[in-house]
Formats: sequence, structure tokens, C-alpha cells
Amino acid sequence: MSKKIIVQKFGGTSVGSPEKIKAVANRTSKLLDDNKSIVIVVSAMGNTTNQLVKLAKEITTEPNPREYDALVSTGENVSASLLAMSFQSLGINAISLTGAQAGILTQDLHAKAKILTIKTERIQKELNNNKVVIITGFQGINPNSDITTIGRGGSDTSAVALAAALECEECEIYTDVDGVYTTDPRKIKDAQKLTEVSYEEMLEMASLGAKVLHPRAVECAKENNIILHVRSSFELTEGTRVKEANKLEVNKPVTGVAVKENEAIISMIGVPDTPGIAGEIFSELANNGINVDMIIQNVLEKTDSNNISFSIAEDDLDQTKKITKSIANKLNCKLLTDTSIAKISCVGIGMISKPGTASKMFTALGQNNINILRITTSEIKISCAINQEDAQKALEILHNEFELT
Amino acid sequence: MSKKIIVQKFGGTSVGSPEKIKAVANRTSKLLDDNKSIVIVVSAMGNTTNQLVKLAKEITTEPNPREYDALVSTGENVSASLLAMSFQSLGINAISLTGAQAGILTQDLHAKAKILTIKTERIQKELNNNKVVIITGFQGINPNSDITTIGRGGSDTSAVALAAALECEECEIYTDVDGVYTTDPRKIKDAQKLTEVSYEEMLEMASLGAKVLHPRAVECAKENNIILHVRSSFELTEGTRVKEANKLEVNKPVTGVAVKENEAIISMIGVPDTPGIAGEIFSELANNGINVDMIIQNVLEKTDSNNISFSIAEDDLDQTKKITKSIANKLNCKLLTDTSIAKISCVGIGMISKPGTASKMFTALGQNNINILRITTSEIKISCAINQEDAQKALEILHNEFELT
Repeated sequence: MSKKIIVQKFGGTSVGSPEKIKAVANRTSKLLDDNKSIVIVVSAMGNTTNQLVKLAKEITTEPNPREYDALVSTGENVSASLLAMSFQSLGINAISLTGAQAGILTQDLHAKAKILTIKTERIQKELNNNKVVIITGFQGINPNSDITTIGRGGSDTSAVALAAALECEECEIYTDVDGVYTTDPRKIKDAQKLTEVSYEEMLEMASLGAKVLHPRAVECAKENNIILHVRSSFELTEGTRVKEANKLEVNKPVTGVAVKENEAIISMIGVPDTPGIAGEIFSELANNGINVDMIIQNVLEKTDSNNISFSIAEDDLDQTKKITKSIANKLNCKLLTDTSIAKISCVGIGMISKPGTASKMFTALGQNNINILRITTSEIKISCAINQEDAQKALEILHNEFELT
Repeated sequence: MSKKIIVQKFGGTSVGSPEKIKAVANRTSKLLDDNKSIVIVVSAMGNTTNQLVKLAKEITTEPNPREYDALVSTGENVSASLLAMSFQSLGINAISLTGAQAGILTQDLHAKAKILTIKTERIQKELNNNKVVIITGFQGINPNSDITTIGRGGSDTSAVALAAALECEECEIYTDVDGVYTTDPRKIKDAQKLTEVSYEEMLEMASLGAKVLHPRAVECAKENNIILHVRSSFELTEGTRVKEANKLEVNKPVTGVAVKENEAIISMIGVPDTPGIAGEIFSELANNGINVDMIIQNVLEKTDSNNISFSIAEDDLDQTKKITKSIANKLNCKLLTDTSIAKISCVGIGMISKPGTASKMFTALGQNNINILRITTSEIKISCAINQEDAQKALEILHNEFELT
């Protein structure tokens, strides 16, 4: 009978020092028994990746993507081999595998390659030899045998892809928080840990700045129907399971509230109502690596032009203005900028079946004199742009309003 | 017509910082023309390897060799990719290759694997695409695709093996000194840079502590008849060529004088004259990684027992005593220890054809009241153990005596 394989992923904070790496080995060693095989995916230690990026930037402001991947992937090699040594020093058989050795094949793209397939022969062989198999997250190889990386935060995705390839039911994501909360517990003291959350809600929360899981990993888990168990590296308590929603059980319209600060809003006023223009604007921004959020387009009454607004991280403001200015000039339209914006969002799969969630949110904010600057909604999310100074107050109001405490 | 391939090796000091890495790219870029292809072998940046070893030691005092190799090899990956970026930022096509990508196949051994063969297809392909090919020194892969390392100082050997596989005439070894000197220029001010030195002399000097070249690299160069050009990373002057001796041109008996300090001598008195005993002693020491030097065995007159003496680094003294004590007890022989010993050696291929070199050396030391504790000789080397406090004086005397200034 083949053993049950468990994939565990430990992030950079969890392997931030030799002591922490030893603690990880120690923790996992206690789970070992004859019926289980363990595969561990690790990120680079603490700040290592940033230090490597800094080195590259000291050489050139525009490092070649292939060399950049060869460079930054070394961080995971270091933590994987140190973790293997830690198991071995406990008398447990273990082996570290690089992305290449683990058979993680990606697209021929750098810095953001997608995993195409995982040839698990080597992993299976080592598991059959009763070894804990430790695999470098974040990296793979392309058809040329060149090292690729799959984007920041990609170790989560590596773990899920491995869980899928190894036909696991569950993938454990160990992190420095002990689960997913109704909102950021650093901001709201009585935020509650959720036992379960749906993939869809987690996706919305992740893109709203809840940093526990990378959105790609959630998507990948959803596609492969793998349960993600988000839990603490430092405590033994159960965390939050991200899984297919059981819609019969949903009784609250809102599962969580999130705030994203330090945003800016760019508005282009009087954009000609011609097909293809929005495409041009956002392609140009995407090509420059600018992450655009909250796109709103309104038709101006009785004209043949539109207003297009979108939010970005305030850090990207200068570059975004440069790009949009040249397009605005060409189209002969006006450009407006709002800075110091926060985006507050309510997320919940329950709002699909419970109408009135949006109006409840807007009313609560309005009664407390919080001005709503922009609104966007998706099936399970309502987001409002507000002034940054109102962010904390708005969070407290909505967390209470939707009975999350 | 195929281009001439030049292999250049840059050590850790030469690539110790982003600035130095850029300087290396800058320097080599000036050599580029349509008739040359450049392959560069790099060590890890400055102190990186030691830092990685330190990390391992924080996990366990006895790291698993496979994981140790996976860990320490990352240092070279970092410097290789940074150097590739530096070339690219100068507008020069370049690519970094790991040991695996460069086809460097080694024995299935860790920490000290020998290079078995180099499959140069990928290197050749990249050279044909007019790229500067940068290869990580010190590492390869075994038949299992596991990363191996070839021992400290192994990047020199990597470079020579690559030069042999690529059928180069010369391999350039860039370092922080500008060549090989008659003796350590930090100790004797008017030490002279040698234009040429034979493989044999270089081998003796290397094992005497002249740190410019790793002995294995010299052996490998000798076997493959590759000229090693030892030169400065920071200056453009020619350095020292290590090559087949032209015996007709030798006119001095001694080419260089070297001193190795902080040695200890262990003497075993009354070792039974039975075959296999010396073998047992030195196997035991080798198995414990203790580098033994200057082995002397004398038969005691009118007995059937021997005295065996050998020198070791003073750092290894405690461990060596422990090992030899248990053997001495078993053999019922006495153990003596001399500490604070220096070994001074004269090296020269000329001494083969010029008798009297040894007596000249002993006389010079004797006339200056320097007591000789032990003597060993090889075909081209005479070494004397002396008290450490006499080391500098002895060096000055012999450097003068053999007209090296």
C-alpha cells in the first residue's frame, strides 16, 4: 500500500535563521510515522532574496532575466540544503532537491514562468527510500535546462503544483500567522480566525493584501481541488482550510474585511469611446510591470467619451503618470490624480445569495461621515476607495457591521 | 575557421564585490575581438563560501556531504550570474552556466570529487553564438545529477580541466598577486617575480604554502600540457607562466624559497619494524582529514624498530595526538611532540643537475646558528624543519645565498 503524501510549505520567515530551520525539522519530525511521506517546499531564508536582488541592482539597473533567475534561485537552494541537514542531524533520512532535480518544468520565460508539468520520478524514488524530500520553491527549469523562477511568492504555487502532481488531498502552508482572519488582527484586535474559507473568498482577500497566500497558489489549488491548510510554523494549533465552499452552510454575507493602503487613483477624463483604447492603456501599463487594480469606466452622458479610473500602488505613481500622460496627450484627454487613497473591501461568498450587502456597507460608511470616492464590485466582493485617513475607522465600522467579531 | 578559446579564472578576491565583478567584465571586454572566444571560471565572492560553511555548522557539526555540496556550491552560482549581468550591461553577450549546465561530470563523491569528463556541447553552442561563457568553478554533477564539489581551491582545477576539454594552449589564472615570486614578497621585500616556472617547481611551492595555485590544478595542467598564466586581476602586466621546464635554460639551482609556519612535529620512537605499520598510521590520519607533511623514517641502529616523524599544521595537533596515541599504545612505542616549528624549503629544477645545493643550504643555516631539526628532500626540493623564531632570518639568508634578489 502506498503511503499518504503530505506537502508542507515553509515561507521565508519560518526558515529565517539556522535556529528556525532546526525548529521546522523538529516540528515535522514529530508528525512522521510509517503511513506518511513528507515533501517540504521551502522559500529562501528571511531577507535573502531581497539581498540577492540588491546585488544584481548594484551591477545593473536592468539585469538580464535569465541571469536574474540563476541568481535569485540560489536563496532556495541554501535553505533547502540546510533543512535537509537539520533532519539528518535528528537521525531522519532527508534529501534536498532543486527545481531541476525535482523535475519542475516551466515555460521558457524568466522571472514569471508558469509550471507546465512536474516529472515526479526522482521525488517518488526518494520517498520510496523513506526520505523526507525537501524541494526548493519558486524555481524550475525550462526546456533548455536553464533555471527559471515563477514570480515572487511563487513558493506557495510550487507547493500546490507539487501537491497536485503527487495527488495529495491537502497542502499545508506554514507561515508566521496561524490562519486567515476576518481582517488583519494587527489592525482590529478582535478579528476572528476563520476555520474555513472558500477559494473564491481567499482569492479576493489575497489580492486585497492579505499576505498569507499568493493568489496564483489559490487558483492552482482550486483548479486541482487541493485543500490549502494555512497554519502557524510556531504553534501546533489547526489553522484555516481553504477549500471548495459548502454553499448550504453560508450564513453570513461577509467573511472578511480588508484594507489596502498607499494607493493612488489615476483618472482619464474624456477618453474617446472607440474600441481598443482601454486595451492599449492597460497593455502598456502591464508591459511596464505596473499592477493595476480597481478599474472603473463610466460613460459621460450625452457625449461620445468615457472616464476611465484605476488604482495603483502609490510607489508606481511616477511611472504610471509618465505612461498615461503620453497616451492622454495622443487622445487629447485630461489626466487627474488622487493620492493617499485606501481601498476597503468586504468579501464573502454569502453575498451572492444575500442581497443588500452593498447598500449596508455604503450606509454604514456614510453614517460615519466616510466619503466614498469610487466603488467597484465583483460577485463576492465590494470595494470602496476612501481617503487614507479614514481607513482604520472604516475597518472598525465594517468589521462590526457585518458581525465578524 | 574556429576561434581561439581562452579560459580565464577569477578567484574569490577578484570577484569580492559588485564593483570588482564589474571591473573583471570591463577588463576582459577589452580583450575581445573576432578571433577569440572567452570562457571564464569564477569562484564565490570573497568570503561567501566560509559564510555558507558557517551556516551549515550552525545546523550541525557534521553536515551530510551531499547537502554540504548543494549548499556551498551556491556561492559560485551567485558570482557567475552577477558577472554575466556585468558583461551584458556593457553590451556584450554573455551567459552563466552552472557545473551541471556546463557538462562537468565528476565522480560520485562529495566535497572532493574528481572531474571525470566535461561534455562541452552547451559551452561550444554558447561560444558559437558569440557569448562570453561564465562557468561556476568548484562544482560539477555526479551520475545521479546531484551537485558535487571538487574541494577547496578547486576553481583552479575547474579552469584547467575546462582548458583541456576545450583544447586551449593556455589558461589564465587571475589573482590578487601579479605572479609567482622567488619567495613571499610580504616577507622579503626584494623577492623577484618569476617570468616562468616549471610545473614541478610550482607543485612544490604550492604545497609549501605559496597560495597562488592549487596543487591539483598544477598537476592537471602538467598532465594536459596546458600553460598556466598566473597574473593580476587588477593590473595589466604579464604574470608568471607555469609550463614545461626548458632544462637547457636552467642556470640557478634554486628557483624559490618558501616558509611554512605554525607546524608541529610528531615523533613515534621505537615503532616495530613490521611491514604495514606506517600504512596504518597514515591511513588513520588521512581518514580524519589530517594533512601530513614531511614524513621521515629512520631505522634505529642495532634494533628492529624505527623512528617515524611527521609534520602537521599546529591546528591539527590535538586530534593527531589522540589518533597516534592509541596506535602508539598498541605498538608499545613512545610519542614525542615538537611545537612552534617552521619548515623552510628551497625549490628548483636546477638542483637536479647542480649537486651541492643541499650542503650549501645546511652550511648557510648552520653558520648563522640556525638549528636544523629535521631534513627531507625530494628531487627538486630540500626542506628543513627549524624553530619558528628562526623562520624570517632563515628565509633572508637562503634568499640571498641562492641569489634570488
